[in-house]
Amino acid sequence: MTNRRAVVGLDVGGTKTACGLFLDNGEALYHKTVPTSQESPAASIGQIASLIDEAIAASPKDVVVAGAGVIVPGWVNHKAHTVWAPNIEGWDHLPLRQMLEKQIPLPLILESDRCGYVKGEAWLGAARGLHDVVFLAVGTGIGAGIMIDGQVVHGHDDLAGAVGWLALNPSFQGAYRQMGCFEAEASGNSIGRKGSSIFGGEAGAARRVFEAADAGDLCAQGILEEVVAYLGMGVANLVSTLNPEMVVLGGGVFQSGSSLIEGIRRECVRWAQPFAAERVRIELSLLGEQAGLLGAARIALDNV
Amino acid sequence: MTNRRAVVGLDVGGTKTACGLFLDNGEALYHKTVPTSQESPAASIGQIASLIDEAIAASPKDVVVAGAGVIVPGWVNHKAHTVWAPNIEGWDHLPLRQMLEKQIPLPLILESDRCGYVKGEAWLGAARGLHDVVFLAVGTGIGAGIMIDGQVVHGHDDLAGAVGWLALNPSFQGAYRQMGCFEAEASGNSIGRKGSSIFGGEAGAARRVFEAADAGDLCAQGILEEVVAYLGMGVANLVSTLNPEMVVLGGGVFQSGSSLIEGIRRECVRWAQPFAAERVRIELSLLGEQAGLLGAARIALDNV
Repeated sequence: MTNRRAVVGLDVGGTKTACGLFLDNGEALYHKTVPTSQESPAASIGQIASLIDEAIAASPKDVVVAGAGVIVPGWVNHKAHTVWAPNIEGWDHLPLRQMLEKQIPLPLILESDRCGYVKGEAWLGAARGLHDVVFLAVGTGIGAGIMIDGQVVHGHDDLAGAVGWLALNPSFQGAYRQMGCFEAEASGNSIGRKGSSIFGGEAGAARRVFEAADAGDLCAQGILEEVVAYLGMGVANLVSTLNPEMVVLGGGVFQSGSSLIEGIRRECVRWAQPFAAERVRIELSLLGEQAGLLGAARIALDNV
Repeated sequence: MTNRRAVVGLDVGGTKTACGLFLDNGEALYHKTVPTSQESPAASIGQIASLIDEAIAASPKDVVVAGAGVIVPGWVNHKAHTVWAPNIEGWDHLPLRQMLEKQIPLPLILESDRCGYVKGEAWLGAARGLHDVVFLAVGTGIGAGIMIDGQVVHGHDDLAGAVGWLALNPSFQGAYRQMGCFEAEASGNSIGRKGSSIFGGEAGAARRVFEAADAGDLCAQGILEEVVAYLGMGVANLVSTLNPEMVVLGGGVFQSGSSLIEGIRRECVRWAQPFAAERVRIELSLLGEQAGLLGAARIALDNV
């Protein structure tokens, strides 16, 4: 009897952490999601190690667990061997890989969440089998995973895909300084902020803008029109620069706002290099919240 | 005695064509520049073949000419095996490589001029030895050569780097439709056009704007300030998206306007992802008009 090969994928987020055990065809053998530990780096690292141990323990007898892939919501600096993730307590240039390796009996690879998203979608999602793909994640913030010729682009300091900082409006505004122009104009948080004067602020404000627009509120519709204009410009810039086969749209904003895609396609045609715009497909994520977890598994498979 | 290896490099432009014979250390053994033939595709292809023949004939006895690299001012579609170059008569989806190969006794490779520029600068120019480099060419038009991990990025349809189409101003204007927003705001032609109401139009208008600004003309200075703002946004977008080690600025505008670089660096810091902006070096082309020719030679060397 031949053993089957599996890997552990782990998607660490600011609020929850998902862990799964996957065969190399993508089949899930085990899955668990927990709230992300925010007490201390030791606690969050211990949590990751425990989740990996549990996944290994849950593997069937004929399965060999060959490695683990962990994606994190921040900057995985492969040269400095550190991780910076502002949404997780104490992950401030933390030598995460070194600290985890001591506790884990598997080959380990770390990547940023946006690398995971594009790997996941290109493996089993909307971009299945494609080699030139951009995943544009529009949630609390904005970032992109970029795949060229089948390889994820890291950039010289592992910062590639920081497209929340795309400059899209020559009239510089204060909010751009904190998060970049594109993110200040079109992220979920920014939709909430743009709507807060009308719908009240705080959590869920973006969703309330979408709901109001659906119900015919002209002000909410105006906010979303502006957001679509910026999303179209951002997508167009990725299309003109990289000439991908597909741009996959994912993240929380598209869970509420899947209807935005038609407007984004139209704006992309208006702005982007015409042949590149004609050739590219712009699609919603198929994997949704699973994109990162499957991407982490794919990264682990590519590493072992 | 060991033979030395050389290649022919050929940089075909809309007005002139340069041809050189280069050793694999970059040393030039022969060089010739002629006005580009514009009579017909047969004539321009014959001209290229003749130039390559002459370069081979001019090679010293101990030199083996191993291949030729040709860069062209347009779209080299590697999948369709065609070239589209609007500035050369009849190069309208022309099967250039197939037509040239019949006339040339060497392995031949075609690339776009912007691929050539970045290869040249990364070989022997400002970005010598670097692996993550963007060459931003700002002349008549705007385009970028992108190198990631030492490989030139082509995109799925060989259109990557069409950054003249970057969307940088949400207020869409008619001129953007023809050439893209970035090109309409910041190319040499556009500087000339912006200055034409003041300095008269036509050829050399961009240079006259630079001269007037140098002489203290406030209106010309205002035009260049706006141009620098757009160039800074464009560079920032490449930095945030790709996180290169260096952005090399080349093309005719920087031959007149080398003083623009300080403003571009300042604007890039204002707009781009802060760590990526801190890390990137923004430098003027060292090779100038030779970047393309040396890049063509480098492409040929990599191909043989």
